[in-house]
Amino acid sequence: MKNKVLEGIKEKANLVYNQILKKKTPGLDLPLRSLSNVKYDEKGGYFEILGKKKERALTVGTIKTFAQTLRMMGLSKQLIESDDIASKREAYYISKNWKEASFNHQPDSDAVMDDVEGMLMVNREQLGFIPEEKGGEIAGKLIVIDQDTETKKELKIDCTKFGSGAYSIPISVEHLKFDTNAKFILAVETAGMFQRLVKHKYWKKANCILVSMGGVPTRACRRFIRRLSDAKKMPVYVFTDGDPYGFFNIYRTLKVGSGNAAHINQYFCVPRAKFIGVTPQDIVDYKLPTHALKDVDIKRGKDALKNDPFVQHHKEWQKAIKQLVQMRVRAEQQALAKWGLNFVIEKYLPDKLKNPKTWLP
Amino acid sequence: MKNKVLEGIKEKANLVYNQILKKKTPGLDLPLRSLSNVKYDEKGGYFEILGKKKERALTVGTIKTFAQTLRMMGLSKQLIESDDIASKREAYYISKNWKEASFNHQPDSDAVMDDVEGMLMVNREQLGFIPEEKGGEIAGKLIVIDQDTETKKELKIDCTKFGSGAYSIPISVEHLKFDTNAKFILAVETAGMFQRLVKHKYWKKANCILVSMGGVPTRACRRFIRRLSDAKKMPVYVFTDGDPYGFFNIYRTLKVGSGNAAHINQYFCVPRAKFIGVTPQDIVDYKLPTHALKDVDIKRGKDALKNDPFVQHHKEWQKAIKQLVQMRVRAEQQALAKWGLNFVIEKYLPDKLKNPKTWLP
Repeated sequence: MKNKVLEGIKEKANLVYNQILKKKTPGLDLPLRSLSNVKYDEKGGYFEILGKKKERALTVGTIKTFAQTLRMMGLSKQLIESDDIASKREAYYISKNWKEASFNHQPDSDAVMDDVEGMLMVNREQLGFIPEEKGGEIAGKLIVIDQDTETKKELKIDCTKFGSGAYSIPISVEHLKFDTNAKFILAVETAGMFQRLVKHKYWKKANCILVSMGGVPTRACRRFIRRLSDAKKMPVYVFTDGDPYGFFNIYRTLKVGSGNAAHINQYFCVPRAKFIGVTPQDIVDYKLPTHALKDVDIKRGKDALKNDPFVQHHKEWQKAIKQLVQMRVRAEQQALAKWGLNFVIEKYLPDKLKNPKTWLP
Repeated sequence: MKNKVLEGIKEKANLVYNQILKKKTPGLDLPLRSLSNVKYDEKGGYFEILGKKKERALTVGTIKTFAQTLRMMGLSKQLIESDDIASKREAYYISKNWKEASFNHQPDSDAVMDDVEGMLMVNREQLGFIPEEKGGEIAGKLIVIDQDTETKKELKIDCTKFGSGAYSIPISVEHLKFDTNAKFILAVETAGMFQRLVKHKYWKKANCILVSMGGVPTRACRRFIRRLSDAKKMPVYVFTDGDPYGFFNIYRTLKVGSGNAAHINQYFCVPRAKFIGVTPQDIVDYKLPTHALKDVDIKRGKDALKNDPFVQHHKEWQKAIKQLVQMRVRAEQQALAKWGLNFVIEKYLPDKLKNPKTWLP
């Protein structure tokens, strides 16, 4: 993989180099990153980028950006070759030594990084660039295989052995391998619910791998779940609050990705994900305590019905959202505690897992 | 510890019970939780609560809160006895089965939980209640000793064996023990900087324990650092961005606690903490790239000079804040990357650790 990315960088650089030798104006082809250049790919299950490109040619007006793009490619090459990493912010500060090609603001260097990512059709972690934020924890029947950065020896990390703690997913997960006989991955919205499932070793009872997303999953968390579910062809069950935030910001982002990052959704989407709860029907069936839906939630639900290609593709989701908007309430996953603290472990999750008819796609 | 808390609950309950038997109006003494009931304890190094109390007596107006306080004490007793946990939100939902004593809004149940915490002078984790949020990761020379929740067998978690990942601190850390020969704890603000130090095994070179706070440290993260530094009498060095947010929201909260949670600061403060950077003087000495201070930052600095008992106690901090406000700039910890990605590992941290004169108290 690393070599493939290095080759890609060299190939693009050679193109520019040869154009210059031939005294032609050098240029770089970049895919257009916007919703107008995206379609919902039914088979792959994610927002896929279409063929539209923009060209960044060397002109008086683009000379700085052009130079910055080449330097960013150079930095990536250097990172891959020295097996190092740089956060987006670090990349910005490194440019302070690029003289005329230095960036004045981090959003500018972030945008050029996105361009390089799109041009090479890889995710930026593969270029050696890492996000600032971190997130996602694992407990249960999984051995993560990492390697010691010094000795390059294999390191086996057994996620059944952390007691009340957990394995924290690193910022870049491209190099990890997995060993597991678990039946499924259970991705949980809140840290509190995750801690309950860990405390009572739910992963042992259900033979599964628990993931705490801690709200909207980070890139590293999404990519980890994706790579793990691919490697072991393992289903992913998602358990969030029963509200539009849980449905769209968390579940839909995890499953199909988002609009403005279409060129990388193929790496981050989790097509095997299913939504097991809390569904609007669960609120009725389990007589859950609720909160009133805010106006913004109702608007978000109605917008999704109108504009979201994922929702438009799935009748079940349309029905669920209409039901929620009609009931005008939402329910948190902790609301199950009304029936006893461990109702979720003893009754709710076993029942839901047995009845795929109660899930949403 | 568990037994002590149980005894405390029973003692308070017996008091109420006996008052009723004697046909007196039952009441509970709660410490007043506000800045007017706080002093800066120089020796302990934290905001300490003073003796002012409010009484919650049984009257027509307080009957519901009184009943709720007793039920909350009962829930805590049940949690401790069954070795279970409940998040604040779960406690709220459990109350839905308390009939007339059920809470209508979670802030109400949170406040009663704070009262019970204050009344028994313990932190709520000791009562079996856990926060919703989670945070804090560990890598380096530390073995965490936890126990298997089923078998009660000892579990040793070696934080040198997580490769590029890390050990994620559980929500409640009261039961953990530690084994380490490390010289110090290095608490880092950003996940990106933490990942760099982990990637290059800085903990091995410096013989230390790395903690990623990920912004303002959570209760669990603060308590973990406190318990670890106490157990091994180990210094704690804090490394944040050079801005008022890093100084006050992160460092000062970690070291001395906050005003509105004074009754628990004694459990969460880390008196052994020292601030090693990025100091305002570092910005000058290392010629760091900067951003302009926002008006709100300048105001925060000036407010701290005027009103913050911690700042008023330390001349060095007064000088540093005046310097920052005068320069009108801030610098991020990633700004060190201007001198090369690993300048922070090869030069900055070794230099700073050698020169305590460059630290702030």
